[in-house]
Amino acid sequence: MPTFDRSTAISFGFNPLDRVSEKRPDEAFVDARRNHPSTRFLVFVGETPVLRSQENGFDPLFSHEQAAELGTPILDIFLGEDQDGTALFALALDEELQESLAARPGLELAGLRSLAQRGLTTQRVLGELGGAKSVLNWHQRHRFCANCGAPSKVSCGGWRRDCAACGATHFPRVDPVVIMLAIDGDRCLLGRQAHFAPGMYSALAGFLEPGETIEDAVRREIHEEAGVHCSQVSYFASQPWPFPSSLMIGCFAKAVSTDVLVDENELEDARWFTRAEVAMMFSGTHPDAISAPLPFAIAHHLLKAFLEEKFM
Amino acid sequence: MPTFDRSTAISFGFNPLDRVSEKRPDEAFVDARRNHPSTRFLVFVGETPVLRSQENGFDPLFSHEQAAELGTPILDIFLGEDQDGTALFALALDEELQESLAARPGLELAGLRSLAQRGLTTQRVLGELGGAKSVLNWHQRHRFCANCGAPSKVSCGGWRRDCAACGATHFPRVDPVVIMLAIDGDRCLLGRQAHFAPGMYSALAGFLEPGETIEDAVRREIHEEAGVHCSQVSYFASQPWPFPSSLMIGCFAKAVSTDVLVDENELEDARWFTRAEVAMMFSGTHPDAISAPLPFAIAHHLLKAFLEEKFM
Repeated sequence: MPTFDRSTAISFGFNPLDRVSEKRPDEAFVDARRNHPSTRFLVFVGETPVLRSQENGFDPLFSHEQAAELGTPILDIFLGEDQDGTALFALALDEELQESLAARPGLELAGLRSLAQRGLTTQRVLGELGGAKSVLNWHQRHRFCANCGAPSKVSCGGWRRDCAACGATHFPRVDPVVIMLAIDGDRCLLGRQAHFAPGMYSALAGFLEPGETIEDAVRREIHEEAGVHCSQVSYFASQPWPFPSSLMIGCFAKAVSTDVLVDENELEDARWFTRAEVAMMFSGTHPDAISAPLPFAIAHHLLKAFLEEKFM
Repeated sequence: MPTFDRSTAISFGFNPLDRVSEKRPDEAFVDARRNHPSTRFLVFVGETPVLRSQENGFDPLFSHEQAAELGTPILDIFLGEDQDGTALFALALDEELQESLAARPGLELAGLRSLAQRGLTTQRVLGELGGAKSVLNWHQRHRFCANCGAPSKVSCGGWRRDCAACGATHFPRVDPVVIMLAIDGDRCLLGRQAHFAPGMYSALAGFLEPGETIEDAVRREIHEEAGVHCSQVSYFASQPWPFPSSLMIGCFAKAVSTDVLVDENELEDARWFTRAEVAMMFSGTHPDAISAPLPFAIAHHLLKAFLEEKFM
């Protein structure tokens, strides 16, 4: 029963698949779902999604036969079941196949960021690809047991790794990140990192640390990156962010100081923007050619809410 | 500049230390702070806090000399600086010293859960101990590089582990967990796990997975554990939970179905409770001797808010 809310409406956030998580430890069940003729596959080569070019767009779903033509997967993840009971798996092919698959007629390889930016798939497929990519990346980076150093093995339909040597079990990691606008009356605080597209300013953000509340992390990051003190923090929406596996927690924070002191290790610049300026950023009419983040980023939605005064 | 909000008022959530995180990579800085005579130490033996018994309570802060008497630490973490500039470190002693230290007059060893329940320290110390315990536990469970299996080394004042073999860097893990009350008019949904204290019912909870928004995770967990469908989700507060390192994200969810189907792998029972029943749980007058979670759990605060109708 998918429900539309702020978070669901943001890219990577719509993922109505039934994860059937209680069935993951049941190997016979997962095998049966994997082998069922109706089962469909999302395919990645390394971490790049593979799509089938169609007359009117791109199809991300592969049948057994279509997937088998691409090569032998090195890993698969049981993603869950559709409302009609169709099972969905993600398959990872060896990264080395990237070049040969890209050359095949009828196939399109496109990074997830580019898929999101270009709107090449439905929001739903984007959500499924995003979740799958995070889990695949985690396997790639966690082939050994952090507790004892022995190689670990995939279990539970791709949702766990087990160490036979020390008995430790390991679960995919999700890193909470706070991303927020400090608000001072009619102004909000934005920054830009050196690697951003030219002219783009976005919300400040940073990883939440052990021992922190969401609210404390929001206040700490704003103070560290821009020297601004904040008091009240309000939650806005969240977004699973598959680069590689963050949970973006979008918030607003009430500023109680206004002098900006930029942390030059993190940011190229940070400054206050009036609502009028933000409106020009969205309409592409800012006199200094400053632009807003793209709609696939939660920062875009925070700024939109600020503009429409639907916050705090 | 600590600010009191809902999250800050919950146990483990008050931690106003300046983490000075930008200085962590600077080894000379961290060394200078470690060796400064004014620096104070929180001490753990294994993951158990060590306190000094005082006439009027317990003191968790050790000076250099006091800490040195306990043994040689196997690890330390630079936690940050007080408002007056005093640095705070956490020290971990070998777990094997537990028995001998427990026998020393003037020392008290007490698990963090028990410290929180018994109110043996200030909220501030509890927050600092909690954050430190999460990081210490992470080191304990992550002595090897998950990417290549080689032993990794502590760096950045205890906030990173580096692998010399493959060059990977690893950061302490924080696992987002959703914890929530489904609401059906005047009733809320509570469950109990077999290991709970007799008679206690609490909020449902579960780990957020890759590819999920907070809202989706809330709806999924309620449906998985109790078969109840929900629509709108509202954020309430968050809590760092050091067992071992979760971020509890407290929410309310509007129920759109009411039949309860208990997942018996997860729960012993789940059922609806009226506001009148919840009031009796808090006052200790429930006819079936059902009790509410203790104040150090965010579930207690969710229930209090439900009782006072300060939610959604």
